[in-house]
Amino acid sequence: MPALPIPRPPLPSLPPAPLTLTSLRGVRAAGVRAGIKASGAPDVALLVADESMSAAGVFTQNLFAAAPVALSKAHLAKTGGLARAVVVNSGNANACTGQLGEAHALAMCDEVARLVGCAREEVLVCSTGVIGQALPIDQVLDGIRRAHAELSAEPPAGRAFLSAIMTTDAFPKEAGASFSIGSERYGVAGVCKGAGMIEPNMATMLAFVATDAPASPEALRAAIGPVAARSFNAVHVDSHASTNDTFLLLSTRGGSASRATADLVAPLTDVARRLAWLIARDGEGATKVTTIEVRGASSEEAARAIAKLVATSALVRTALYGRDPNWGRFVSQVGNSPHVRDVSRLACTIQGIKVFEHGEPTKFDRALASEKMGAEDVELVLDLGAGDGSASVLTSDLGYRYVEVNAEYTT
Amino acid sequence: MPALPIPRPPLPSLPPAPLTLTSLRGVRAAGVRAGIKASGAPDVALLVADESMSAAGVFTQNLFAAAPVALSKAHLAKTGGLARAVVVNSGNANACTGQLGEAHALAMCDEVARLVGCAREEVLVCSTGVIGQALPIDQVLDGIRRAHAELSAEPPAGRAFLSAIMTTDAFPKEAGASFSIGSERYGVAGVCKGAGMIEPNMATMLAFVATDAPASPEALRAAIGPVAARSFNAVHVDSHASTNDTFLLLSTRGGSASRATADLVAPLTDVARRLAWLIARDGEGATKVTTIEVRGASSEEAARAIAKLVATSALVRTALYGRDPNWGRFVSQVGNSPHVRDVSRLACTIQGIKVFEHGEPTKFDRALASEKMGAEDVELVLDLGAGDGSASVLTSDLGYRYVEVNAEYTT
Repeated sequence: MPALPIPRPPLPSLPPAPLTLTSLRGVRAAGVRAGIKASGAPDVALLVADESMSAAGVFTQNLFAAAPVALSKAHLAKTGGLARAVVVNSGNANACTGQLGEAHALAMCDEVARLVGCAREEVLVCSTGVIGQALPIDQVLDGIRRAHAELSAEPPAGRAFLSAIMTTDAFPKEAGASFSIGSERYGVAGVCKGAGMIEPNMATMLAFVATDAPASPEALRAAIGPVAARSFNAVHVDSHASTNDTFLLLSTRGGSASRATADLVAPLTDVARRLAWLIARDGEGATKVTTIEVRGASSEEAARAIAKLVATSALVRTALYGRDPNWGRFVSQVGNSPHVRDVSRLACTIQGIKVFEHGEPTKFDRALASEKMGAEDVELVLDLGAGDGSASVLTSDLGYRYVEVNAEYTT
Repeated sequence: MPALPIPRPPLPSLPPAPLTLTSLRGVRAAGVRAGIKASGAPDVALLVADESMSAAGVFTQNLFAAAPVALSKAHLAKTGGLARAVVVNSGNANACTGQLGEAHALAMCDEVARLVGCAREEVLVCSTGVIGQALPIDQVLDGIRRAHAELSAEPPAGRAFLSAIMTTDAFPKEAGASFSIGSERYGVAGVCKGAGMIEPNMATMLAFVATDAPASPEALRAAIGPVAARSFNAVHVDSHASTNDTFLLLSTRGGSASRATADLVAPLTDVARRLAWLIARDGEGATKVTTIEVRGASSEEAARAIAKLVATSALVRTALYGRDPNWGRFVSQVGNSPHVRDVSRLACTIQGIKVFEHGEPTKFDRALASEKMGAEDVELVLDLGAGDGSASVLTSDLGYRYVEVNAEYTT
């Protein structure tokens, strides 16, 4: 039983990312306070490249996709995957806003294009925040002008961009790494926001992952599917896609002498997966992140579908919150998957302790298993012992704070 | 924020059902204490018909289906849908119990067959309770003998049967009604258990709906799909099918001069749907039942799939708990359905108040809507304004008690 008030779970201790967006060659960034948020927190972010960037995107498939989502998709289609700038506002999602919303999204791109000196189609736009309310467009455009004036290639500018895309995130989410292709060193940096509450709550996710390795639009389009499948599409908080979800993959140095997709996928995935972990960790009331790994399935796709089914079970997620090595909940959800034909060889391991095999629970040490489930990183392995398909999904646990955050703050 | 301890939500005030199983012609029932449950509560239930009953079943599709599920399916297949008796034990699900479990399920049928004087295939068997533990079979068989000795056609016997199938149900669940076909009067009576906690928690549902209208096995098999679709398959508590879920449809007077399926579906559905409402009402920590009705979809199947997607959203269910007329959560989940192509004509009404239409929220009275959402029966209507497919799903809300029940009682 929780003490009152239900305590916010401790935040993870996060070392600063070794790279931020402005660590990459060829880009500048800014984040400013435009007054969209009543709190006065930063709410307009701008990223501008010296030359044309290559870009690829994955967007929400929700039919209520917001105006900026539709516009960014159209711009990427028109340019074939080129962009000079990305503009983001937080505090208002510009969703369910009709034709006025479309005009506002266009106005944001036009203002950036005018300032940067590029075509409007070379500007990508994202919004996140409350839905069903018109953007305060004059404040947004003024914010864009001030952000442009403040563009900088110094590390604080990358962090300012990050601050200005956040909504109710409990902590900033960034990741970065260096990697080599042959004798060349490159950087990957990423920032994201989500899955904190938005009012009305939609848990929008925005993610931007960029590299200064040269990459053509085609190379990024080929990479973004595999990268997303192992990161942002492999994270579960509440299985309710929002109107504004957007993941952009960028190369700040464009496509001349593009590096091969095969050389890019691993370093881009590493950074994207770290960001996805941070999103799961910030799931409302989450106390840990559980990696649900399915092995021995008929294919990687089957393994991913099974892992997602386990990850979305409220019974599984409450057991994770309660540190309960509840093998019955874990294995039975595998038995509910249409991608499974045979469970006779299924084995279940939680935090390295085998709890189920040969159709029956093992005689494991429940107290020890429960203690190990108190960690911030929990691993649940479900091995079907059949094919060689494997995949993993990250999930937050489901505790009292989830209910509090989502039920108590009525509109 | 909840007071401590988190109060059990008030139970619904339930008038007794006008009919119980033993109100039907041609059957006797009993429920006894066999000692399976540590609490000493009733745990073996027996229903025996004077003549051969017609029977049809819908069973869990979980690959970890328990031994009694596999056996009952096999028996129905062998007899072509005839049965003389149904035996149920609670307190132990006989699931994940290997070959010993299969032998125990068979032993239960054999003992009933011996006592009744019928073939073992004419006995259907169900179990519910803890999984992964062997049945205390001697106690179970002794309980069966005592239940047989106590068989009675009086109303208390029907209620005793019901008591003995319950696990952690907060209240007994029964429904019944009379109906006419031509000048003949018949009865329908049903009992069920679920979706309270079982340890390890699997929320098994067992439901038995019987009529004394003559019905052939074929007529019941044709009826059970439509009946289940509008009742037990249209209720959502936590989207995690158990190892033991079973719904049996019975005619206590068998198939001579069978009534037409078309005449049976409506009265059987009425009773089954009432039972389904009671299951949703007893969802862990539930404070209400919400009927999510989708209209204007391309087909009934599409409407049902959309309604289920809305019903399974934790964001929707916490909003229902919090009495939050959160149109954004309600309509956006419709936009996530693969069965929806166009949301431009979507309208959303909660408790009779239109909160969304023409792509935008209406200017509704939020305080009034919230107040009306405090009712025990809440209706959320999502009208796509396109086809003529409609369907409804019942869901429980998601509150603190759900987390408490499912996370606090660690194994």
